[in-house]
Amino acid sequence: MDRTGALATPELQPFLPMLYVAWADDALSPDDVRVLRERLEAQPWLKPALRIALEQWLDPARPPSAAELATLRRTLERSVGTMRPTRRLSLAQLASSMVDGHACEATAHALAEIESLLALDAAHALDDVITPYEHDAPRPFARGPRPDVAAMRAMLDGPHVAVRETVRAFLAEPAHRSAYGLTKEEHRAKVLGWLEELAKTVGIGALAYPGVTTDAPDLGGYLAAFETLAYGDLSLLIKNGVQWGLFGGSIFFLGDDAQRAKYLHEVASLGLLGCFAMSEVGHGSNVADLETIARYDAESDEIVVHTPSESARKDWAGNAARDAHVATVFAQLEVAGERHGVHAVLVPIRDANGEELPGVRTGDCGHKMGLNGVDNGRIWFDHVRVPRANLLSRHARITDLGTYESAITSPGKRFFTMLGTLVGGRVSVAAGAVSASKVGLAIAIRYASERRQFGPTKEPETLLLEYPTHQRRLLIPLATTYALSFAIDELREAYLRAQREGAKDTRELEAHAAGLKAIATWHATRTLQACREACGGQGYLSVNRLADLKSDTDVFTTFEGDNTVLLQLVARELLGRYAKRFTGGPVALVRALASAAVLTMREKAPFRAHRADEASLRDPEMQRAAFAWREESLLRSAAARAKKRSDAGMDAQDVLMELQEHLVALAEAHVERRVMDAIAGAVDRAPDDDTRAWLAKLRDLHALATLEARAAWFVENGELDGGQTRAIRKLVPKIARELRDAAVPLVDAFGIPDACLAAPIAFHDPAHPRW
Amino acid sequence: MDRTGALATPELQPFLPMLYVAWADDALSPDDVRVLRERLEAQPWLKPALRIALEQWLDPARPPSAAELATLRRTLERSVGTMRPTRRLSLAQLASSMVDGHACEATAHALAEIESLLALDAAHALDDVITPYEHDAPRPFARGPRPDVAAMRAMLDGPHVAVRETVRAFLAEPAHRSAYGLTKEEHRAKVLGWLEELAKTVGIGALAYPGVTTDAPDLGGYLAAFETLAYGDLSLLIKNGVQWGLFGGSIFFLGDDAQRAKYLHEVASLGLLGCFAMSEVGHGSNVADLETIARYDAESDEIVVHTPSESARKDWAGNAARDAHVATVFAQLEVAGERHGVHAVLVPIRDANGEELPGVRTGDCGHKMGLNGVDNGRIWFDHVRVPRANLLSRHARITDLGTYESAITSPGKRFFTMLGTLVGGRVSVAAGAVSASKVGLAIAIRYASERRQFGPTKEPETLLLEYPTHQRRLLIPLATTYALSFAIDELREAYLRAQREGAKDTRELEAHAAGLKAIATWHATRTLQACREACGGQGYLSVNRLADLKSDTDVFTTFEGDNTVLLQLVARELLGRYAKRFTGGPVALVRALASAAVLTMREKAPFRAHRADEASLRDPEMQRAAFAWREESLLRSAAARAKKRSDAGMDAQDVLMELQEHLVALAEAHVERRVMDAIAGAVDRAPDDDTRAWLAKLRDLHALATLEARAAWFVENGELDGGQTRAIRKLVPKIARELRDAAVPLVDAFGIPDACLAAPIAFHDPAHPRW
Repeated sequence: MDRTGALATPELQPFLPMLYVAWADDALSPDDVRVLRERLEAQPWLKPALRIALEQWLDPARPPSAAELATLRRTLERSVGTMRPTRRLSLAQLASSMVDGHACEATAHALAEIESLLALDAAHALDDVITPYEHDAPRPFARGPRPDVAAMRAMLDGPHVAVRETVRAFLAEPAHRSAYGLTKEEHRAKVLGWLEELAKTVGIGALAYPGVTTDAPDLGGYLAAFETLAYGDLSLLIKNGVQWGLFGGSIFFLGDDAQRAKYLHEVASLGLLGCFAMSEVGHGSNVADLETIARYDAESDEIVVHTPSESARKDWAGNAARDAHVATVFAQLEVAGERHGVHAVLVPIRDANGEELPGVRTGDCGHKMGLNGVDNGRIWFDHVRVPRANLLSRHARITDLGTYESAITSPGKRFFTMLGTLVGGRVSVAAGAVSASKVGLAIAIRYASERRQFGPTKEPETLLLEYPTHQRRLLIPLATTYALSFAIDELREAYLRAQREGAKDTRELEAHAAGLKAIATWHATRTLQACREACGGQGYLSVNRLADLKSDTDVFTTFEGDNTVLLQLVARELLGRYAKRFTGGPVALVRALASAAVLTMREKAPFRAHRADEASLRDPEMQRAAFAWREESLLRSAAARAKKRSDAGMDAQDVLMELQEHLVALAEAHVERRVMDAIAGAVDRAPDDDTRAWLAKLRDLHALATLEARAAWFVENGELDGGQTRAIRKLVPKIARELRDAAVPLVDAFGIPDACLAAPIAFHDPAHPRW
Repeated sequence: MDRTGALATPELQPFLPMLYVAWADDALSPDDVRVLRERLEAQPWLKPALRIALEQWLDPARPPSAAELATLRRTLERSVGTMRPTRRLSLAQLASSMVDGHACEATAHALAEIESLLALDAAHALDDVITPYEHDAPRPFARGPRPDVAAMRAMLDGPHVAVRETVRAFLAEPAHRSAYGLTKEEHRAKVLGWLEELAKTVGIGALAYPGVTTDAPDLGGYLAAFETLAYGDLSLLIKNGVQWGLFGGSIFFLGDDAQRAKYLHEVASLGLLGCFAMSEVGHGSNVADLETIARYDAESDEIVVHTPSESARKDWAGNAARDAHVATVFAQLEVAGERHGVHAVLVPIRDANGEELPGVRTGDCGHKMGLNGVDNGRIWFDHVRVPRANLLSRHARITDLGTYESAITSPGKRFFTMLGTLVGGRVSVAAGAVSASKVGLAIAIRYASERRQFGPTKEPETLLLEYPTHQRRLLIPLATTYALSFAIDELREAYLRAQREGAKDTRELEAHAAGLKAIATWHATRTLQACREACGGQGYLSVNRLADLKSDTDVFTTFEGDNTVLLQLVARELLGRYAKRFTGGPVALVRALASAAVLTMREKAPFRAHRADEASLRDPEMQRAAFAWREESLLRSAAARAKKRSDAGMDAQDVLMELQEHLVALAEAHVERRVMDAIAGAVDRAPDDDTRAWLAKLRDLHALATLEARAAWFVENGELDGGQTRAIRKLVPKIARELRDAAVPLVDAFGIPDACLAAPIAFHDPAHPRW
């Protein structure tokens, strides 16, 4: 029986959309169709012919064939073809539109009832039939106002602009694009070539030794170059850090003036390549327990360097596998039978031909997850003899009489002075992690502002960056990257100031560097992961850079100090300062007064007033107070818990062990408070109102997303209630959306040269689709 | 003036520890020393000689030289040398010990006061002087009871043990160890060789087509093989999935009996290598909008396959760059001018010599973050003609008369039936992600139970796994991996059951697979990251496998369906079911009754009673109710929010956009509830009390760590208060600690062959330290 003929019946027209929906979409089960038919049959006003036609088309036992459904669809298309409704209509509205503006009231009512009864999303099912197809130009993305890129870039660049521009020009050359897919040896050769260019053409190495190879007052230029180099191949960055920061830095910070003068010019020009042999395979983080021995032999006036066991093997040292001719070896110094703790000794390891010297054995750490352009290696020493003069002698020396002499009497203090060489490395790694995050975000955000996927039928698909989940995963890290960038500025300037002033007590600075290194590198790992996922399969291709950015930075969280270990150092420093602040005596009193600001802030505890309105949540003083309160509160409770256990006779080591998670939380809260202060400070010093307003949005997003992540803690401590955490949770996506149109200018402000950004997905060429 | 002579004075002995602490450690500033001296000078009972000695040694302007401090230390060592205190003592206690059992009360009091005044941790500073050095054997790690590995392994293996053992034997051969550091082409060649062995020797391919190449009733054996293969090189796993799962699977699921018989034997034996060309570069997730055309040309009785634009380029297809001779091409089928939606057509792409066939152009996706042993490629078709018989014709065919015919009349339903081929892939990827997590955890946990770092002075250092932060980052993922493993079992069995029974409505199953794929792959990414960091620099070396495990699995979160997209599918399916559950009519009523169990549970809402005691939190019914309540609550609120917007006339697309984050949260809650149920079920069916008790600990840790992560939401919704979230936060590390001694047996139960585990850091050979 042919039921397609009935489709032309005028009375049936208002029901065609319903019939199509009933069968074309997978929405209705046979049971549903039965319900629908029963409902229609119950309508008293249906004329018999119409009733028969509907029954034929709504027989659960006889769904239409593909051909019948195609006819139904064509009839429907003709029927609605000229309507071009500007928005989606319900079945009832559509029925009205189809019969000269209004269907009979009973029909409309019945259709509305059916639509609601079956919980149909009819509009969705009818999309491809009734929505007009128009070859619109894709909707332009940047509809709203956008920040001024130049002003923002000036804020981010800060001082040392000239050095940054020089490095940008280097990175912009096609020959310096980051490498991928090479073998380990190819990559190493390429990176060494680049490093030579940096030494000779760009002159980066010379920036590293103020007072020796440069007249600059401090390391500012070198650090700015490092931060900018992190936009390019990260093996080159780390090779640079190994040669000039760690190896050269060991001579600069631990060598006396004669040693500096003797070696550093060659180090800067790459005439002398060296490595920094601190870590041993059995002693990664625990440097105090290094096993390598440096015994002074008075008879020959030499120092004998020896690896006493397999676990004392020097490991991970960059440059050690291939390029280094000298190693700065950290070892337990023994003079006249007495141990003086860890000291640094220069030990030649390879001759001019690159052959190992007698008693020296080196090994290759082999293939790594990333950074394969850096030749990390191992070294074993078999009673290797070097002149007494090779002991780096700024802080301790062996006299002509063969006795040990040091201006720093306390072994503990001496040890931490030696380790002070690591501070610059941590400042650099933190900055490098932030730069790498910037590259990842630039790629992913530019892709998300061009790439479309899914969306309304027959309209251009929706831009990825329009999706709330995409905004959350890219724009929150963007805001935090801005905050960290400003925090790095403050850390760098504090470090340079301490250097220029020859500060004695640098414990706070060391804790600051350690803490920010941990937070910034974890941020980079998370951010680059989010960027990779946000670019889907494209993000997985090496050509689009995210793969190597991820793999290369992955080790940042554990090298130059394992993050978890570093955060415990930070917490111990905070506890130490806290203890002094609150113990008696005139000295302590002064200290206590200095911390009064914190106490006053504590009294304000802004959330106690239970303000959950948007203006309060976006008030920078309230935000900063929340971060400060969290830190102070975790500090007080950690101190109290530690004291209680100590008073009960618990061993100090056991106390630290029991409180380990608390201490890590405290250190994180400390760094987060400083990062929050840094972005709030940046807002305050913005050069103009517009830039200030955009920075304020970034601050708000960073602050509230962090509070959202810490919400459970605030609730537990009675500082936030459920209503407030809900208000924060709702405000975060709202602010992210406010930043959506500004996202591309905000990553453009990082000033990453296009040629260096490199990833094809970050560029849009209408003539040659990038896919 | 020589003040070292005074050190021998008997009266000074009790003060030696204090003097040493004052100078040796970095704890005291000159101000502190001044305070200390003032306090001592105020003591009326000090004899003049003693007073002078103390003043000499506590002159802030004259800290002792290194030599003087060394003498002080030696004197102190002699003085305490014979004491060997069994635990650390305060300055006062030490003073008492040194002078025949008791110092004078005034001395002890003064010392105690000083210690507290300056907040000194004297015991810590004195550690290396007074703690006896003993060459203890390292403290044995496994002190407590341990689970029975065999019983646990049997639970995890489930059915198909024989297949699993066959694959384990394959992986245990040294020649099959996972490869790293190879070039792309070397890796591809190696993987193809392995795949041929799997086809010919092990017979994996034949397991994939029950009823055609095997008599097995279902794909159970193939899936078990896949899960186990994921312990080895993941390029091989994915190549296997591409050839037998996706390509062969497309013929098995979409081909008619003749097509199955014609091709599948050769597919299984690798006589025919093919690829699955679904994704296009412009249409990654949005398959419905594929652009490739398959137009039926009635005149020549051929199908013409064509790539109409650059964005229609087929992309990512494994095997396409090098090895495939045929492609299953998904394209918009056009018959007699009418479009019928996406269909699959077999298109030969290379001849016997591997040369491209006319009209076919292929490209290489190039180097990738991981999985470089898989030759992912691109294909462009320029009006390529294939016989009509190449349309895979199980669900739709072109008749001899040249008309289109399909048993599935609804285009929407037909589309989802075609996509049904993806379900097996998602089940497999989810399982592979869990297996990869198991390998990572086995490596990191075995390393953490051997590797020591830091700890009490002169004792063996502390095992990494003793640290609470380490327990948190490894043992919570371990518990969740167990839970996911049982959830995978349930998904796999549901999938096999549906297959055996030829289930018609598989929407729930598809949602289940999509959701678990998303959660399991994100879990793998996070877990492997934690494992890498937990192994420090060792984790960064390719030889230790974590690098490639991370890089290879990274794409799991976005291939076979982007996780965020998949979770939205899950949520839409849940909303659809919900709508039907609560709309009127007899059919809906039955459905509503079926969900009564959920409603009843809702009434119980266990947390409302505010029970925060350990027994309640470890009660499985309470845990399950919490997960179920979260899902139900997110579902209700999502439905209400969607309805409100629809009623107000909002476009369906816009509704989904506005609720996107809510929908993702709902889908996650749904999967988390199912995973919770799965591990709770595994506890119930454990074969003996001991195994049950260990599984219960894993369940508790998984459940409470998940609730900890969701705490803010529960608080917001009034189901938990701050006291309860605090109780949960404290209980999580406690349970982790309970599992510490069991961790190694619990990873041994995964049954990963040692040779396959491969990572040197996972093994301990006392004769050859693994470092």
